[in-house]
Amino acid sequence: MKSDELFALLRRRGVLWPSAEIYGGAQGLYDYGPLGTALKRRIEDTWSAWFLGLSEDYHLIEPAEILPEAVVRASGHLENFTDPEVSCDSCHAVFRADTLLETVRPEGVDGLSAARIGTILAESSISCPSCGKRSLSVPRPFNMMFGLDFGVTGDERVYLQPETAQGSYLAFARMWDVGRHALPLGIAVIGRAYRNEIAPRQVLFRMRAFTQAELQIFFDPAAFPVPFDSVRQEELPVLRVPARERGQESPERVSAEKLVESGLPEFYVYHMVQSYRFYRDVLKYPADAIRLFEKSDAERAFYNRIQFDVEVHLESLGGYKELGAVHYRGDYDLTRHGQGSTKDLSVTAKDGHRVLPHVLELTFGVDRNLWALADTHLVRDGDRSVWKLPPYLAPVALGVFPLLRKEHTAYARALTAELARDGISVEFDDAGTIGKRYARMDEAGTPYCVTVDGGTVASEGAERGTVTVRLRDTKAQERVARNDLASRIRSSLQPPRPSG
Amino acid sequence: MKSDELFALLRRRGVLWPSAEIYGGAQGLYDYGPLGTALKRRIEDTWSAWFLGLSEDYHLIEPAEILPEAVVRASGHLENFTDPEVSCDSCHAVFRADTLLETVRPEGVDGLSAARIGTILAESSISCPSCGKRSLSVPRPFNMMFGLDFGVTGDERVYLQPETAQGSYLAFARMWDVGRHALPLGIAVIGRAYRNEIAPRQVLFRMRAFTQAELQIFFDPAAFPVPFDSVRQEELPVLRVPARERGQESPERVSAEKLVESGLPEFYVYHMVQSYRFYRDVLKYPADAIRLFEKSDAERAFYNRIQFDVEVHLESLGGYKELGAVHYRGDYDLTRHGQGSTKDLSVTAKDGHRVLPHVLELTFGVDRNLWALADTHLVRDGDRSVWKLPPYLAPVALGVFPLLRKEHTAYARALTAELARDGISVEFDDAGTIGKRYARMDEAGTPYCVTVDGGTVASEGAERGTVTVRLRDTKAQERVARNDLASRIRSSLQPPRPSG
Repeated sequence: MKSDELFALLRRRGVLWPSAEIYGGAQGLYDYGPLGTALKRRIEDTWSAWFLGLSEDYHLIEPAEILPEAVVRASGHLENFTDPEVSCDSCHAVFRADTLLETVRPEGVDGLSAARIGTILAESSISCPSCGKRSLSVPRPFNMMFGLDFGVTGDERVYLQPETAQGSYLAFARMWDVGRHALPLGIAVIGRAYRNEIAPRQVLFRMRAFTQAELQIFFDPAAFPVPFDSVRQEELPVLRVPARERGQESPERVSAEKLVESGLPEFYVYHMVQSYRFYRDVLKYPADAIRLFEKSDAERAFYNRIQFDVEVHLESLGGYKELGAVHYRGDYDLTRHGQGSTKDLSVTAKDGHRVLPHVLELTFGVDRNLWALADTHLVRDGDRSVWKLPPYLAPVALGVFPLLRKEHTAYARALTAELARDGISVEFDDAGTIGKRYARMDEAGTPYCVTVDGGTVASEGAERGTVTVRLRDTKAQERVARNDLASRIRSSLQPPRPSG
Repeated sequence: MKSDELFALLRRRGVLWPSAEIYGGAQGLYDYGPLGTALKRRIEDTWSAWFLGLSEDYHLIEPAEILPEAVVRASGHLENFTDPEVSCDSCHAVFRADTLLETVRPEGVDGLSAARIGTILAESSISCPSCGKRSLSVPRPFNMMFGLDFGVTGDERVYLQPETAQGSYLAFARMWDVGRHALPLGIAVIGRAYRNEIAPRQVLFRMRAFTQAELQIFFDPAAFPVPFDSVRQEELPVLRVPARERGQESPERVSAEKLVESGLPEFYVYHMVQSYRFYRDVLKYPADAIRLFEKSDAERAFYNRIQFDVEVHLESLGGYKELGAVHYRGDYDLTRHGQGSTKDLSVTAKDGHRVLPHVLELTFGVDRNLWALADTHLVRDGDRSVWKLPPYLAPVALGVFPLLRKEHTAYARALTAELARDGISVEFDDAGTIGKRYARMDEAGTPYCVTVDGGTVASEGAERGTVTVRLRDTKAQERVARNDLASRIRSSLQPPRPSG
């Protein structure tokens, strides 16, 4: 489906819609409806189960989402978290310089300075997209953070966090104190980040408020032991910088072992594999739609020593889109916050030496993945749509239908309440034909539907106390004892964890 | 425990700490650590299970937390969401006028105008608490919303939401469209609210960023049917306005039936009972510590027709504190947003007439309740602390211990992994004596501990494959087959739902 068509479907089903819709919307902000809220929560829980499952020493925390100015000064965001903007001297419209240039420079502008972008803009013959005149200004840096004044006197400047990672760095010293005093120590945050995007676009891909899930792993650069043998043979779909420079778009399959031989550290490749498995085996994106896209020196932030983005090809947006990344950030973050706070953030490793931990950062865009799960898993089946979400991601796990409203409603409602008390996400539906109810549940991603009929409520007979279970993906139907229902489906509703 | 002592314990255990601690903290902001994050999530899930369990037509959504200026103009927040502030003309310190007055006016200042507060201040002989001079200014209204500039030109003013309720009002029209077109329709939001408190204090009770859970029930004022018989005999601990005006502090027990006879609507009293049951039976605050505190005409916001706050007596804060409330808001919200957006927000009721729904609002402070659950449930047991949380609220449901590190670790780790895959929140611990491990788990609120010992791993014998389960509250121990563990504890981990 095209982006517009997919968005219309998601809006109609109450998955999401533009925020403050009755006021004409707010640019770059979206509201999640009941299905979207449940799906988003399950994506977060599924991410947590996988990435916190990598080690007992990885923990989820929830820091405040507002940062004092000293924090963003130390992190570099105050100075550097900018996009180049240009304005039209004639009509005063404002644009992102890099976005304007993409039309004449398909290779992109990542890594170019504002000055270089300005030169290219001047040399190109780009006119103002709004009024058509050739009156664009030179590019200026525009800081994308939202600042606020704290307190009554307004002399305390704070910022909405532009990324969730800062909360982990600020918490590191405290987490070290309350934990086992061992590296690696992982600190995960699922929270909102805020960016004053010059041009919000592509629905959930360029928002002004969005949810990130990030795991920051603090480790001793002298020793980050990983069970590499468990991933050695895994083939990863990588697109390395040299291949990209030859114009290649498709990834090549390279084993983890070969990637290490090419110079990447074992701990880094191990986490590439675990990330790749999450996108392929847990979120179940089609394996041939995923690529691990290496960023070049010019494209990476200067403190990132190695960076591969996890990209998935999305029909709705017409290409590969970044859904997450693996960043090796070195000791940049703790060095900067050690200086900024004048606290010593180094710790004593097991062998007694002091070490300033390095950081491996696994990032994940919750909203982007929600959209991608709609793009890739919501399929047409004739004139109907079926959202083939894995059961542990489905907003509603089970639909319960009375076949006849008069005879079977009481039983079906009691069953619904019982399953809800058992912790299963369940929805009662008695509107329209059974076929229509299946169709509604299919579109909402519900993997199981249960129908209560005459056999169920009969006072005797082989079908007494049994219900018809219908599976979304195969449409297969089976008679199951009511008392076996929960235990039959429960394990499929648990998000997978990494093995070993 | 006193507030300081309780906070020190919670900080030491990694439940929460001041945000940006290494930079000296940020006033009115806190970070939740691993235990606090898990507890907060469970409080939210428990609230959802109960209040969304009241009706199939109550749904949880997640709106953006930023509001366009037109929204807060219509809601009245732009004009009226103010606290009176005074400053010292000598030392320029700033204070909340109402807080200053509380020292000389124990009956409080709720409902007084800024002008009246100014007169009382002038008549009192209050000096500046900072420099001691009698140089306080007259009170001025101070708007507590945080404003931001959206977009590059800075001409689009938006606000961090001062309460989560606005997201429900904005979503009502869309939710009506995607739903069953029936009233009552409930829209719940769990989200952050932001207030520029002049004087943040009392840890989680007066923060600048905090989490609210709110259910807005939109209903036809001509008919809001509730199963009143199921609550008729319930005795509620109410403190009505006349009793308060006589100086009474303790509630009186009055039946739901009598409250209706006194003039409160059945739908209102029904929801008072369901709220009271949530605090008493689900969160398990001591029944004699709860009171339903009626707000007078002067104290209520003018659009609230009826308001009872749910208050719980907290030792740490030395008195009754508001943890939630039941507000009957009439048609104020949809009227204002209908005018502000120029959209008709009335709907067609079942009998065909057009109706502008009224709103019953059930509010709940997530952070405040987290603190209150520590205050009331974390008890001293000799020189140890036991956090007697109900199992469905416990951050960790089950601790798994190898009796001997060498012999029993492999089995205990496999059991830990298996229970985690089964969806049970489990933690492995092999540090120190079994007694020390029990103590750590008791303090963290873990209801069940399991020890793997020689009998468990033996190749034969009656204890093979069984473990010792120890209960936090009774300290009773029992041998349980490993394979029965999950099913034995599972139902206790499900948050309760309202019956009937």
